[in-house]
Amino acid sequence: MSDMTSTALSETETQSAGGERRRRTGGRGGDRSRATGSTKYRNLVNQLARTELLDPQALDDIHDASLTVLEEIGIDVMLPEARAIMKAHGAEVTEGADRVRFDRGLILDMIASAPSEFTMHARNPERHVKIGGNNLVFAQIASAPFVADREGGRRAGNQEDFRKLVKLAQCYDVIHTTGGYPVEPVDIHASVRHLDCLSDMVKLTDKVFHCYSLGKQRNLDGIEIARIGRGISMEQMESEPSLFTIINSSSPLRLDGPMLQGIIEMSSRGQVVVMTPFTLAGAMAPVTVAGALVLQNAEALCGIAFTQMVKRGAPVVYGGFTSNVDMKTGAPAFGTPEYMKAVISGGQLARRYKLPYRTSNTNAANTLDAQAAYESAFSLWALTQGGGNFIMHSAGWTEGGLTASFEKFILDVDMLQMVAEFLTPLDVSQDALALDAVRDVGPGGHFFGTAHTLARYETAFYSPILSDWRNFETWTDAGRPTTYDHANRVFKEKLASYERPPIDPAVEEELDAFVAKRKEEGGVATDF
Amino acid sequence: MSDMTSTALSETETQSAGGERRRRTGGRGGDRSRATGSTKYRNLVNQLARTELLDPQALDDIHDASLTVLEEIGIDVMLPEARAIMKAHGAEVTEGADRVRFDRGLILDMIASAPSEFTMHARNPERHVKIGGNNLVFAQIASAPFVADREGGRRAGNQEDFRKLVKLAQCYDVIHTTGGYPVEPVDIHASVRHLDCLSDMVKLTDKVFHCYSLGKQRNLDGIEIARIGRGISMEQMESEPSLFTIINSSSPLRLDGPMLQGIIEMSSRGQVVVMTPFTLAGAMAPVTVAGALVLQNAEALCGIAFTQMVKRGAPVVYGGFTSNVDMKTGAPAFGTPEYMKAVISGGQLARRYKLPYRTSNTNAANTLDAQAAYESAFSLWALTQGGGNFIMHSAGWTEGGLTASFEKFILDVDMLQMVAEFLTPLDVSQDALALDAVRDVGPGGHFFGTAHTLARYETAFYSPILSDWRNFETWTDAGRPTTYDHANRVFKEKLASYERPPIDPAVEEELDAFVAKRKEEGGVATDF
Repeated sequence: MSDMTSTALSETETQSAGGERRRRTGGRGGDRSRATGSTKYRNLVNQLARTELLDPQALDDIHDASLTVLEEIGIDVMLPEARAIMKAHGAEVTEGADRVRFDRGLILDMIASAPSEFTMHARNPERHVKIGGNNLVFAQIASAPFVADREGGRRAGNQEDFRKLVKLAQCYDVIHTTGGYPVEPVDIHASVRHLDCLSDMVKLTDKVFHCYSLGKQRNLDGIEIARIGRGISMEQMESEPSLFTIINSSSPLRLDGPMLQGIIEMSSRGQVVVMTPFTLAGAMAPVTVAGALVLQNAEALCGIAFTQMVKRGAPVVYGGFTSNVDMKTGAPAFGTPEYMKAVISGGQLARRYKLPYRTSNTNAANTLDAQAAYESAFSLWALTQGGGNFIMHSAGWTEGGLTASFEKFILDVDMLQMVAEFLTPLDVSQDALALDAVRDVGPGGHFFGTAHTLARYETAFYSPILSDWRNFETWTDAGRPTTYDHANRVFKEKLASYERPPIDPAVEEELDAFVAKRKEEGGVATDF
Repeated sequence: MSDMTSTALSETETQSAGGERRRRTGGRGGDRSRATGSTKYRNLVNQLARTELLDPQALDDIHDASLTVLEEIGIDVMLPEARAIMKAHGAEVTEGADRVRFDRGLILDMIASAPSEFTMHARNPERHVKIGGNNLVFAQIASAPFVADREGGRRAGNQEDFRKLVKLAQCYDVIHTTGGYPVEPVDIHASVRHLDCLSDMVKLTDKVFHCYSLGKQRNLDGIEIARIGRGISMEQMESEPSLFTIINSSSPLRLDGPMLQGIIEMSSRGQVVVMTPFTLAGAMAPVTVAGALVLQNAEALCGIAFTQMVKRGAPVVYGGFTSNVDMKTGAPAFGTPEYMKAVISGGQLARRYKLPYRTSNTNAANTLDAQAAYESAFSLWALTQGGGNFIMHSAGWTEGGLTASFEKFILDVDMLQMVAEFLTPLDVSQDALALDAVRDVGPGGHFFGTAHTLARYETAFYSPILSDWRNFETWTDAGRPTTYDHANRVFKEKLASYERPPIDPAVEEELDAFVAKRKEEGGVATDF
């Protein structure tokens, strides 16, 4: 089988997914196949040829225009320490002014040292994730101020819901990392929130997590918590990226102090920066998708170059988050045709620079209706065909990111699993071609009870979490449940079945001690 | 701009869609742009590179296996007249037996004469549709036994709903043809149903339509009605395909009498046959997608070859309708990962034979919930990336085809328009790159009120029919409408605004006279 049909699953999992031979011969192989079934969605690989919307000339034009922006207009860099680093590397910095301009040669030289692929390390080695290349990693929703489920309605973020959402992220293998706080727990004081939340991330999951860049100390605490969680030295940590931070530019053309500080703390220690301008066409970016991409690319390249000024070879991800606004109201729109174009074009830009590509599973629906599904499905279409590597907000995002929805989380998990199944290779072995079965059944028969069918029917097809395929009468007798109803039931069932992943008691003790000490010290200064 | 970024819209429409220059200079150009706005979604072209799941070897293997099926197992051909034609062309026919076997050379020789592209002619020349190549044509739902809207619930098909659905097909340019009876109007006697329904198709729309192959006379009546509608001679009609019929094989491996008769009547007169096996993996086809594709391909090639035996060069479409069943219940499933793989692989097979490719926009939802949207969106993903040319059931199909839903029709129209917008080229002109606008706004500003934005904001982005992008508070004040609510409102508004397309009174008179005469003759014999 060539690359065109090769696997979306890891080597091990391909063998178990396609392991008809083992299953039919029974014995230990078959048992092992069942036992490892739950890990099927780890380590996804996307072997599809990438869809391209920009021809080479158009790609060059966007590239050139964005470098012209950095060279002629420049970026406001709101941290003296960052400007000093930039100046030391040859950027055009004027004493006392925020504006920094970058020669295009400098930008290109810097980004050339960023790695094309790297691994993010979790405390459970089976949860390490590869970033870049053909790898496809799904991160949970991040940073919603509100949380909702059907019974509780929409409410401000809080620790209880935060923990429930983090537990749900642990429950599904297709959620490869958390993505930040799935909802902002505002009932925890901001000075110590990061300590409680990141400690929870370590204890409630065994997956890679994110720390916010909201001041140097929060980054340092995050790095220490990740280090303790993995039970390794800082030296080892610096050579094994184990924590990531999303860096958003303040579009247009501004890098704020905490973001720059985050790059300095994370990149200098070899941790992962996901550099993501949020360029809404028609608002903080030009009204044309191409113009918004120029701005996205300028800001992304500037931030990525800065990571390399901080430390050559530091792991960094090219982030795109270009969408459009609703021109009637100014509201952000997501999962639109314009979003699809931006996602696919953004992938072309990232690949041009040989950088991993971050994008998102988005929608702007207010509830779990058809809109929530089609906007997300169109997002998944674009990010899959466009070669997204690291997908933020993969599950739970609704209302343009304002609300983390428990039901939407389940809907998204189901859709992500469908994408993963779509990416698995089509078995075209002689056995799968089924010529003998066709011969046996012959004209006018059916395949329900054939040996070929019986040997495969349990695992032949993806079994969705939510799709209700009962006939209309049975479905009516059941009270006509919608996807929303099913998702509401499933998230509660899944939460009830949650089990904490094992953790070394010594690690937990060290973690608790660190958090207690830092709380005693007052956590971090806040602006409130 | 290269092919990679070229247009999804016709030449004329690209100019009006991208006609910034005209709009800004105002005057007649601008007016004309607005006047032709409604035709934006006619003549869609899909310039995306096709996604491929089968490598050349796998494609060969499926091809070979399907030819082996035809050669060694054969097909039951349930019409003596058809067997005689096949025998005359060299197929292996045994006197008194249904089974016919076909040498692979015969099949390949026959299908080689089928055209790769052709035009289907409507009574309004602006509604002609190009089939094959990069053209993308959306046909409305066909053949549902039930119809539903929220107020009326699910009910048996009837003439009133039939007419409403046909009118809705006329209302939207993205619906390029009707696809058959959107719902079966069982309140019209079967002997004359085709006369009333096809007469309605001519009067209520100006688009191409379909006639069912349910006996020779129905085909003949359909051809005559299409001819009268176009106001042309039969000679002209025979050189200008103006009517299509869906031919389904009875999988596995059987071609029924009425279907074969349909091929004979339609192909001999140069009308369009869409040859579509309905190969549900695990039921009427092998449980493996590859096996189901082998069966699909065998049956499709057999039917297509037969069209060419009837008349060399007759227009024919390679149809694929492979999906899987729910192995728990045996119910058909649609819009699944397996469906996506079958749709994309089917496109590769059709292109291998240089034939236009028919596929479908499917789902198995019982209501207009998230499932209805994600299963359809995944179908649209596969059929777009897989190069579908002629898309049946594009709008209104729900519950696995059992029900034509008014609300789903609107949801689908919205999604089809989004696909069309996605396929439009990304404008990467210097103007669109917006370097001057970025310069004007500079760091820290916004683009809401810039000249660049103001000149474009009205037409910059697709304005969806259904997506509700109001903020949560405004949406709550409005009663928290879902997509279902919006679609329910929109279909009624749209129906109220329906206008009959103009028709030559002489044509209408001739049509009425023909229908009256045929009714007097008793229509067609029925089995009831």
